[in-house]
Amino acid sequence: MNDATQLLSENSSDGEVGIVRHHDFRSDEEFRFECGETIPSFQLRYETYGNLNKDHSNAILVCHALSGDHHCAGVYSLQDRKPGWWNQMIGPGKPIDTNRFFVICSNCIGGCQGSTGPTSINPETGSPYRLSFPLPTIRDMVAAQARLIDFLEIERLACVIGGSMGGMQTLQWAIDFPDRVESILALATTPRQNDQAIAFNAVGRTAILQDPGWQNGEFTSGAGPDVGLSVARMMAHITYVSDEGLEQKFGRARRLLNPEQTLEEIEFEVESYLRYQGQVFVSRFDPITYIYFTKALDRFDLYGKSGSLEDAFANVTARALVIGFTSDWLFPPEQNRRIATALLRAGKNASYAEVDMKFGHDSFLLDSPELSRFIRNFLINR
Amino acid sequence: MNDATQLLSENSSDGEVGIVRHHDFRSDEEFRFECGETIPSFQLRYETYGNLNKDHSNAILVCHALSGDHHCAGVYSLQDRKPGWWNQMIGPGKPIDTNRFFVICSNCIGGCQGSTGPTSINPETGSPYRLSFPLPTIRDMVAAQARLIDFLEIERLACVIGGSMGGMQTLQWAIDFPDRVESILALATTPRQNDQAIAFNAVGRTAILQDPGWQNGEFTSGAGPDVGLSVARMMAHITYVSDEGLEQKFGRARRLLNPEQTLEEIEFEVESYLRYQGQVFVSRFDPITYIYFTKALDRFDLYGKSGSLEDAFANVTARALVIGFTSDWLFPPEQNRRIATALLRAGKNASYAEVDMKFGHDSFLLDSPELSRFIRNFLINR
Repeated sequence: MNDATQLLSENSSDGEVGIVRHHDFRSDEEFRFECGETIPSFQLRYETYGNLNKDHSNAILVCHALSGDHHCAGVYSLQDRKPGWWNQMIGPGKPIDTNRFFVICSNCIGGCQGSTGPTSINPETGSPYRLSFPLPTIRDMVAAQARLIDFLEIERLACVIGGSMGGMQTLQWAIDFPDRVESILALATTPRQNDQAIAFNAVGRTAILQDPGWQNGEFTSGAGPDVGLSVARMMAHITYVSDEGLEQKFGRARRLLNPEQTLEEIEFEVESYLRYQGQVFVSRFDPITYIYFTKALDRFDLYGKSGSLEDAFANVTARALVIGFTSDWLFPPEQNRRIATALLRAGKNASYAEVDMKFGHDSFLLDSPELSRFIRNFLINR
Repeated sequence: MNDATQLLSENSSDGEVGIVRHHDFRSDEEFRFECGETIPSFQLRYETYGNLNKDHSNAILVCHALSGDHHCAGVYSLQDRKPGWWNQMIGPGKPIDTNRFFVICSNCIGGCQGSTGPTSINPETGSPYRLSFPLPTIRDMVAAQARLIDFLEIERLACVIGGSMGGMQTLQWAIDFPDRVESILALATTPRQNDQAIAFNAVGRTAILQDPGWQNGEFTSGAGPDVGLSVARMMAHITYVSDEGLEQKFGRARRLLNPEQTLEEIEFEVESYLRYQGQVFVSRFDPITYIYFTKALDRFDLYGKSGSLEDAFANVTARALVIGFTSDWLFPPEQNRRIATALLRAGKNASYAEVDMKFGHDSFLLDSPELSRFIRNFLINR
């Protein structure tokens, strides 16, 4: 294990998590969703990196965003084109240091990437749940993860970390399991989805639900609401980036077209880029999960009926760091700052940091020495 | 006619334009589009308010935005639920004072509300043009309007005014017809469409072009790409308003739903509002025109090949006022300010004003004493 001096050094040569594989946790106990509906059993797909120490006190749970998954570090084979989605942050000597921490990342309940969700078989009918799967909330996602944490025999997490929808889960962990969370690190998130963010999700859902391929959720693979899902994703992708970031990447660049171009041909590079984002997404994501997860986001409101964020945080014991990003207009700095302010007002140990990055909401997924330093230092100062 | 003192008084009782009717201007001369294609003749639908003076020196041309039309003031009958889209700005004693000015507003070429466009009959084939109609540019819109101005025997316009796409036309008028424009007033606009704005338009076009109802533009009325067009409009509408404006209007308000609500049911008021916006739009707008006009916006780039806005403005003689709106994130204040700065750099008589309104891009369409004052004073100081 490295000592703190070495950890703090910017010049330490970071190691790689290397080749990983996923695990499946299965719970045969009934799971009751916040809406009251139940499923008889469920599975969560997850990965871990590093080793759990003897007293099980070094576990970090990483919560993923809407379209993320459990594969946040390492590769499945040396042929993989890309490592997990937060690979630059997780590994031996990296900010989330697997020499010190046992890192867990679980796919969410209701998802479509190995955890039980609408595409899973309902054991009571032998057919996929589809729309009969209960609508999960952020609280449900966290409750299901807590079962996994039980299974891993972890009483108390050293830290829960997540950005965007993962940041919502992070906050919910500190609220719902105050005794089980030592610290939280929430990035690019919000204490409640505002109307603009609901509006974007609503348009995405409309595109899916009104696609003739939707078929009330009973579509067959390859004949589903692909156009609707890709349009939803294209639009959402714009909200994940900034105008400045797009400008820098594309600068109104045009594709070379023949003079006889048709209206259907793509003219600007940014159009081509978005079309590609939409197509890739359709090949890996389930439309029902997309609708479910966006609903979970839209219903997220820590202010609740009391209208008080301080009240929501009353029982939190975790030390907290909230990080906003200057160019994030989906969950702008102000919304992140409000979380830290409310924690402080509620008498908690909380900080807010703002990272000046120009790539919008998705900045939290990108490499930044400043972001790395904030995360590294927060985890060192246990 | 009012004298200036009375015009400046905030307490002057403004009159109404009253009942109006539209006119159709028909040009039987060939019209050549910037792309080189031609049509043998065309029509522009327009309205006028006030009277042209003897020396024809008091004409103001109002240019409309993407989804606007020629009906910007007055009503067609006393039963009309709403007057024209800028009624609060145009009328006897109003900022664009019809006691002093002869105001013209023309529907754009390529449009779908009475001017010649894709849904018009091609006289050479007897069938609607549809996709055989040439793609208009902002410059084409202005060139067609210039023919109308010729027909009205107006040598020189006292002012060209417009917001958003209308602002682009306003700038183009000053550039293409420097001798015919005495002043310009451009609001909530941009010297070039940036990648983020192109991206939103691209998603809207994708939704239309990939709707099974698109049929390569050969759809029949009532069986067209209605879903695609309404999704495009819903998304675009979000870009016309601000998060603060939405928050103030909706504040996460929910509709009353029965406990057995289905996924298709609308949960948040903002969703309901957007759905309605989409539906209304489908009933009044043509999908081909929508694609054409968004293309015209996306291709708008006054920087051009030289990359210099000053060069673009080199021949402008018009006095200019550019107005940006603090909460406009589609064409933010900075993009408006750049227009005035470039005009000043090019040695022109130009000003920039910023109006603090919280309703986003569409603020220019709303009532504001400050905005009214800027416009009134600019027109008085001839």
